[in-house]
Amino acid sequence: MSSIYGALEAGGTKMVCAIGDETGKIIDQVSYPTTVPEETMSKIIGYFKDKDVQALGVACFGPIDPGVGSGTWGYILDTPKKAWKGYNIAGRLREALGVRIGFDTDVNGSLLGEVTFGASKDLTDVVYITIGTGVGAGILSGGRIVHGRLHPEVGHMRLQLLPGDEFAGNCPFHGTCFEGLCSGPAIEKRWGRPAKELADDMKVWETEASYIAQALASLTMILSPQRFILGGGVMHQKQLFPMIREKTLEYMGGYMITEDFPAMDEYIAPASLGDDQGIMGAVKLAMDAMWGCEQ
Amino acid sequence: MSSIYGALEAGGTKMVCAIGDETGKIIDQVSYPTTVPEETMSKIIGYFKDKDVQALGVACFGPIDPGVGSGTWGYILDTPKKAWKGYNIAGRLREALGVRIGFDTDVNGSLLGEVTFGASKDLTDVVYITIGTGVGAGILSGGRIVHGRLHPEVGHMRLQLLPGDEFAGNCPFHGTCFEGLCSGPAIEKRWGRPAKELADDMKVWETEASYIAQALASLTMILSPQRFILGGGVMHQKQLFPMIREKTLEYMGGYMITEDFPAMDEYIAPASLGDDQGIMGAVKLAMDAMWGCEQ
Repeated sequence: MSSIYGALEAGGTKMVCAIGDETGKIIDQVSYPTTVPEETMSKIIGYFKDKDVQALGVACFGPIDPGVGSGTWGYILDTPKKAWKGYNIAGRLREALGVRIGFDTDVNGSLLGEVTFGASKDLTDVVYITIGTGVGAGILSGGRIVHGRLHPEVGHMRLQLLPGDEFAGNCPFHGTCFEGLCSGPAIEKRWGRPAKELADDMKVWETEASYIAQALASLTMILSPQRFILGGGVMHQKQLFPMIREKTLEYMGGYMITEDFPAMDEYIAPASLGDDQGIMGAVKLAMDAMWGCEQ
Repeated sequence: MSSIYGALEAGGTKMVCAIGDETGKIIDQVSYPTTVPEETMSKIIGYFKDKDVQALGVACFGPIDPGVGSGTWGYILDTPKKAWKGYNIAGRLREALGVRIGFDTDVNGSLLGEVTFGASKDLTDVVYITIGTGVGAGILSGGRIVHGRLHPEVGHMRLQLLPGDEFAGNCPFHGTCFEGLCSGPAIEKRWGRPAKELADDMKVWETEASYIAQALASLTMILSPQRFILGGGVMHQKQLFPMIREKTLEYMGGYMITEDFPAMDEYIAPASLGDDQGIMGAVKLAMDAMWGCEQ
């Protein structure tokens, strides 16, 4: 009989709990609204309590401390969701369930899902970017996830403004950073209506694609990845993909284009696991924890 | 008796050849002008021929192919120095000297020197940036150098222009990228005089520090490093350091500043090995090659 792993995709709106096997197959799944820790955590613990999981992987909204060996490993840090600020989510789960916990950011979970079980499983250098309510990224370099001192917050890199663009951006910290220009709320603020009501307005998506492409071109220069995977609510606007591919090439200006440079539809690809990459990545976090890759 | 390693810092202007030991100590050093391959290579080979080195490390001007296992490993790729384009520099040295060759970019060599023998030897996540004739960077993530598909070309990330700045930049590929705004030639193009004649003009360095700081803030968001090390000719203008530190904090806008965030003079530091970080890094490349970390 194969082992069963627990997976928690901890989001600011809902908590997805699942069990899966080492192929990433999800056997059972439920979700609970994210309210306050005591209420939400007792539901999560109740779900996993009798499932006999080998380990639990937690892909969590941030900022968090995923630093193995850090004194605040497993904590949610300074989040706008005040009830969760400073909450030791991984510690609470370990205490209640008595299993090893793998712990990382939500977007690193999605990255892990795609590079373990998805179309990018043979690649070693991948950037997974989610563009939705916010903009975040997980980076795989040489087969390992980039954490650094804390973890990347790629949505807050600054972008060069398009000529004549006077939009002030939507980020309270940085104005016109990647997230301040490209998130769903930034689109709504710029155009006065939610993104989903603007699907037919080409000007909206030309602008959006330009800024996303500029970010991908700069990240190409910084990380030289084999592939970008784009997910999140905004990327459900599928018309963006060909525009982003064309403009990324323009922004690259011929740089980094070696003979073996991948075709653009392989270089900039949608997520391959439907919307399951996050929960499947949490399964992988549990597998890694089981084999010692956690504290 | 300790082992002796060969080190070659291959630059577009000169070739520095040295021998060193496993502490990074340089025992002997010469340099030759970089002319055409046959002339320059015979001098280099002549230097190392009777030195009985265990292995040779080559930190080379780029773009190059450092990809172990690649069919063009060891080659210089599409460089403006036409005589060297497509030249198999590592292969030629291996053939002539009969030793293992470690091969990486010049800036990765400097990074390796600093994190192996310099003030950053206990760190795992470091970005080394050189700002001179061009702008380049080497990235250490989780103790390993980031290569990706090819290698980073961080100088070509785009930056947001300061309000009212109409300078068109100096990069033939991208105009106002980091290199196009901040390199020595970009300073000369913007202000009409070489950087070294402008040391007392505060406006020059305010502008320069702003763009460097913006790049460091964005790279902080992308890589979450423990430290930036800044080297290269432009950074000999020491007045830049305090200005860059102050402006980087401003650009970060409070993001990523956890309780254990390092002091700014540790976060943004000058190179610690005088101008020897490159050749000492080449010694480390040789040591790694000796122990199997090359092809």
